[in-house]
Amino acid sequence: MAGNSFGDLFRITTYGESHGKAIGVIIDGCPSQIDIDEDFIQSELDKRKPGQSKITTQRKESDIAQILSGVFEGKSTGTPIAINIPNEDQRSKDYSHIKDKFRPSHADYTYQMKYGIRDYRGGGRSSARETAARVAAGAIAKLFLKQHGIEIFAHVSGVGQLEAPNLDVSDLTELVSLRESNIVRCADPATAAEMIEFIDQIRKNGDTVGGRISTVIRGLPVGLGEPVFDKLHADLGKAMLSINAVHGFEYGSGFAGSEMLGSEHNDIFIAEEGKATRTKTNFSGGIQGGLSNGMDITFRTAFKPVATIMRDQATIDESGSETTISGKGRHDPCVVPRAVIIVEAMAALVIADHLLKYQSNAR
Amino acid sequence: MAGNSFGDLFRITTYGESHGKAIGVIIDGCPSQIDIDEDFIQSELDKRKPGQSKITTQRKESDIAQILSGVFEGKSTGTPIAINIPNEDQRSKDYSHIKDKFRPSHADYTYQMKYGIRDYRGGGRSSARETAARVAAGAIAKLFLKQHGIEIFAHVSGVGQLEAPNLDVSDLTELVSLRESNIVRCADPATAAEMIEFIDQIRKNGDTVGGRISTVIRGLPVGLGEPVFDKLHADLGKAMLSINAVHGFEYGSGFAGSEMLGSEHNDIFIAEEGKATRTKTNFSGGIQGGLSNGMDITFRTAFKPVATIMRDQATIDESGSETTISGKGRHDPCVVPRAVIIVEAMAALVIADHLLKYQSNAR
Amino acid sequence: MAGNSFGDLFRITTYGESHGKAIGVIIDGCPSQIDIDEDFIQSELDKRKPGQSKITTQRKESDIAQILSGVFEGKSTGTPIAINIPNEDQRSKDYSHIKDKFRPSHADYTYQMKYGIRDYRGGGRSSARETAARVAAGAIAKLFLKQHGIEIFAHVSGVGQLEAPNLDVSDLTELVSLRESNIVRCADPATAAEMIEFIDQIRKNGDTVGGRISTVIRGLPVGLGEPVFDKLHADLGKAMLSINAVHGFEYGSGFAGSEMLGSEHNDIFIAEEGKATRTKTNFSGGIQGGLSNGMDITFRTAFKPVATIMRDQATIDESGSETTISGKGRHDPCVVPRAVIIVEAMAALVIADHLLKYQSNAR
Amino acid sequence: MAGNSFGDLFRITTYGESHGKAIGVIIDGCPSQIDIDEDFIQSELDKRKPGQSKITTQRKESDIAQILSGVFEGKSTGTPIAINIPNEDQRSKDYSHIKDKFRPSHADYTYQMKYGIRDYRGGGRSSARETAARVAAGAIAKLFLKQHGIEIFAHVSGVGQLEAPNLDVSDLTELVSLRESNIVRCADPATAAEMIEFIDQIRKNGDTVGGRISTVIRGLPVGLGEPVFDKLHADLGKAMLSINAVHGFEYGSGFAGSEMLGSEHNDIFIAEEGKATRTKTNFSGGIQGGLSNGMDITFRTAFKPVATIMRDQATIDESGSETTISGKGRHDPCVVPRAVIIVEAMAALVIADHLLKYQSNAR
Repeated sequence: MAGNSFGDLFRITTYGESHGKAIGVIIDGCPSQIDIDEDFIQSELDKRKPGQSKITTQRKESDIAQILSGVFEGKSTGTPIAINIPNEDQRSKDYSHIKDKFRPSHADYTYQMKYGIRDYRGGGRSSARETAARVAAGAIAKLFLKQHGIEIFAHVSGVGQLEAPNLDVSDLTELVSLRESNIVRCADPATAAEMIEFIDQIRKNGDTVGGRISTVIRGLPVGLGEPVFDKLHADLGKAMLSINAVHGFEYGSGFAGSEMLGSEHNDIFIAEEGKATRTKTNFSGGIQGGLSNGMDITFRTAFKPVATIMRDQATIDESGSETTISGKGRHDPCVVPRAVIIVEAMAALVIADHLLKYQSNAR
Repeated sequence: MAGNSFGDLFRITTYGESHGKAIGVIIDGCPSQIDIDEDFIQSELDKRKPGQSKITTQRKESDIAQILSGVFEGKSTGTPIAINIPNEDQRSKDYSHIKDKFRPSHADYTYQMKYGIRDYRGGGRSSARETAARVAAGAIAKLFLKQHGIEIFAHVSGVGQLEAPNLDVSDLTELVSLRESNIVRCADPATAAEMIEFIDQIRKNGDTVGGRISTVIRGLPVGLGEPVFDKLHADLGKAMLSINAVHGFEYGSGFAGSEMLGSEHNDIFIAEEGKATRTKTNFSGGIQGGLSNGMDITFRTAFKPVATIMRDQATIDESGSETTISGKGRHDPCVVPRAVIIVEAMAALVIADHLLKYQSNAR
Repeated sequence: MAGNSFGDLFRITTYGESHGKAIGVIIDGCPSQIDIDEDFIQSELDKRKPGQSKITTQRKESDIAQILSGVFEGKSTGTPIAINIPNEDQRSKDYSHIKDKFRPSHADYTYQMKYGIRDYRGGGRSSARETAARVAAGAIAKLFLKQHGIEIFAHVSGVGQLEAPNLDVSDLTELVSLRESNIVRCADPATAAEMIEFIDQIRKNGDTVGGRISTVIRGLPVGLGEPVFDKLHADLGKAMLSINAVHGFEYGSGFAGSEMLGSEHNDIFIAEEGKATRTKTNFSGGIQGGLSNGMDITFRTAFKPVATIMRDQATIDESGSETTISGKGRHDPCVVPRAVIIVEAMAALVIADHLLKYQSNAR
Repeated sequence: MAGNSFGDLFRITTYGESHGKAIGVIIDGCPSQIDIDEDFIQSELDKRKPGQSKITTQRKESDIAQILSGVFEGKSTGTPIAINIPNEDQRSKDYSHIKDKFRPSHADYTYQMKYGIRDYRGGGRSSARETAARVAAGAIAKLFLKQHGIEIFAHVSGVGQLEAPNLDVSDLTELVSLRESNIVRCADPATAAEMIEFIDQIRKNGDTVGGRISTVIRGLPVGLGEPVFDKLHADLGKAMLSINAVHGFEYGSGFAGSEMLGSEHNDIFIAEEGKATRTKTNFSGGIQGGLSNGMDITFRTAFKPVATIMRDQATIDESGSETTISGKGRHDPCVVPRAVIIVEAMAALVIADHLLKYQSNAR
């Protein structure tokens, strides 16, 4: 249980360090006969990769996915799909200045204490570079879910104190277009412009800022999720919290719902053709008792500001002596624009896993 | 992976329906030679049981824990500890009015759709009664953690829009006393009085309200947690989100942290005797890179208002026809006072599991 | 991974010591809407319980199964099925003579060294009494498999050097009748008579003897099993080897097959109606590449002689001093007659688990 | 649970098809600070690779292991170790003759039925080529076990009806030398010569033959193994049965033990310096109650004859029509000489996993 696997039936295991030879993933449990569209996988990776715009890190990584197994003549065979992504930018010298220092609010100190050794280059295993492997695996999951008519949409709904208004989510495909029309990946263009301006200012100050991502999942059958511990939202929450920098998760009404009265919060069923297919409101976020109820799944994820700032900070070194440290090169001033696709990937992995569990009982 | 187990090395599996013969739990993986204090287990169950005060449900359950195995001459033997809690209040007639109806924002509909059958009495398996088994298991975990000097403290920090001020957490034992001095289990007496007054008013209106619980875990070694998916906060988040009615989880700075700048948010190390034992601030919530850093673990959990209200609500029945439904008897107007001990139990189970994982590598 | 659970999707967790309050099991993952025939469960337990005949132990246990959860109005609900079996014969005084002694070829010594404490009464957790819980769970699995037309048949094919001839297995139901017509549970009546005579003689000598059980599983779809580690025969093998006293497992041609030539051993396909539904021979034991091929699954399990003999044996005590020990009361002179139903139960659990896995991909 | 992972705490996941781009493995849970000797890993792979001698297949594969992650400056870092082994001999044309045919006693038919698609080239995923990944992972496990003074030795003890006499196992290092001194890997030189002669004759006849491998594990602490399902021998048995072509497993006295009397079979303790460190005999195979007892672990594994023979065999094709098939090129006439190192690898993986479990309780 060393922690590098996620999922039970649709299970991924990732490997790789920021500046090692490669990162990658094995996807075990992907059903056979799924069309594996390699261009799609690459397009997903491209949404996460560094160097996309002025508000992301300028590290150069082309992030080319190599499928090593599990695909035959364009289709999944039901055997493990291994995807390897070579690291190109392995300039270890860039990181000599942090070899013996613990960067504030990074994992340097905790890794060193846990393992007694660490690959300090670029954060090693604790680097968010690992999430490229998740995105590749998530792309496979999305290809599987597509066959079941399941859609996932995430966008940047908040940066710092800026918050996008609620979206009309009736057409998720259109929202993707809106989101991809700007570099901050907020589907509300007006807010997007403000966010970009704000992040750029932050970046020029050598500082960083946190943000929030909102997600909608549509098209699930009723009953996905496994009581009582593997509730659908509990697994979604764990998935989101496992992403670097995430500090909070809420679904449906979330924290705001905890301020409400039951008479306001209850979602009243609407009968259609003798079936309960909808509710008037969706404070439940599409989940009741841990099981999908057929409504949109909605949740929100909070990301802390990136810890690497371009300013001098006091810190300590391995010997316990006080010293100072400063970020070098260019880092992400705000992580959420690139994290949108990671959020979608992890959501897809959770849903794929639960869909297989749902099918196992063959209702 | 039917979902009724939690944890890997310190693993629990719960069973039981609200109005079946019993609920209970098997704890597999509890180390041997732990003193099993049955009075302590019972006192923990007593904090969760119904009928404690005017602001909790009046259902009568004495919740007596019977240890069936795994304990010999007062000590754990390393074999599975089975704990059974017989149900006393099995009056099925109380629930005939919901046999064919789906209660709004309850799990009736989703369970029926998933399984094609459900024990409708009191919500069956989806009832929060299941959490008594978690509390019993959590008590075993606490007895284990006590041997390692680990403390866990939770209290009600918010009810509706009422919010307790930040506590001085230097003495957790004293905070437990303060918390237990009032029926809402808020460690700030002034706020507690307001909360009780507010909940009682809500109850008289036949309504319910949500709330929030804040938790502190103290005394962990540095390095608990397993990158990259089984981060300590990811497992804590899943644990919390698996509790009935929880809609949100945040640790450290949480959602508020996503509005901050990196220069404000970074926790600067303090060197003491040549070791990095503390940070000036704790926006990280005691966790960096998914691993405990030796500071207090802090997190917050949001609970939606209880779905059963004492008012008529529109709903539908199994045939899809519109009907109305109303809560009967007395239910909890607010779940957080009883949930405090559930939060502590789940936190204890996560920490126990991660402590065994930590030990497995025998550093 | 403390080892008291078996299976992934159809998962059981057992608890209980030989002379504790109870033993029992939670079955998690049993599909909903299965008819739970309690009489059948009890009849299975009766086949394993002690005191059945002159060639089994005379310990008195009625082994009454109490279903505590997961069944509603006679059907499984998809939630955990907890079954508790109270221990009646808890006369601890019988075991004071072994409190400080390690019985040869028993688990006393290894449990004491592993856990630093043990419930020495009747072997505690290491007692084969634990297998009653497996039989109860296996009965549930059989009820599930019955709906899929899957049959399992095991019988005693060898005791000491006595070996039954190969059976005509065309009618498994008839073979069950033949097996149950004698107390040694061998479906060949002539060999059964010899076995009974032999075991009774062994018993009178205060000695014990080993034996072998042969099993046939019929009616599986093609493709059960999960390459490459969870091959169907690998999971069957683990299941069998987890039963007390089992020292060997082979499937299909087994050890004898390792002496054969490929030209003799290959199973040639027979085409019927344009499909490969049978092979001329079945040295493969119904499994190719770890997956069921539609032929009968066949395997054989070897049990060592019971370690408790009614004779003085040299041994040592906890202080390391030499001493002697002798069995008291009456123990099984040969374990296989009662183990037949345990073998069937474990086989049923493996197949149920793999059937759910098979269904998860919804072919 | 798609079956491509093995182990819990020391867990491997393999990938790759016989004629795809590569095969490989992720090892998750290897403790940090283990010296990773790449030459040793390669020397282990060399013992398994094809083309070693006249009695093995002539396929050309250099089987070069590439470590992609988890190792820094020669030591394990506690993060996943990914090892990739590119396939060199990808001549797909060799396999066009089996594209539409199901080879007898191979996995072609069952894979096709399970997945509806298969990479037919060289058996695809069902090829024993996958075991190279196991050998690489096993080498890592051995490096870990070496630090704990644990030794594993396997050799070919039987081929067809030839059987080596019992060995003097007092010096396992010397036995390795004896084993490696001949191409059949039997540590008894006289029997080895007979085996080689026999296999070569079989090969010339275009036939194949089965065999047996015997294993000794030395140096375990007392108490490895987890009752009641994850008994040490149950996990060893599953590990062995998961190897291609294995049809049987027995430990200690095995099948022969099932013919013995308890008075013969019991292992009497010998007290040394006030501790029970040895038993006079070792019919228990070093395991009592599923836990190691400090004596040598001994077990034996039976391999069926290789299914690919150089003769015409009747079979059927995908349309269900009768046809004939014949092996092409050169295949292994007997699998056991190359399987010795696979057996050792799987044994090492089981022990490494159980050692971490053992350590988790920090006795």
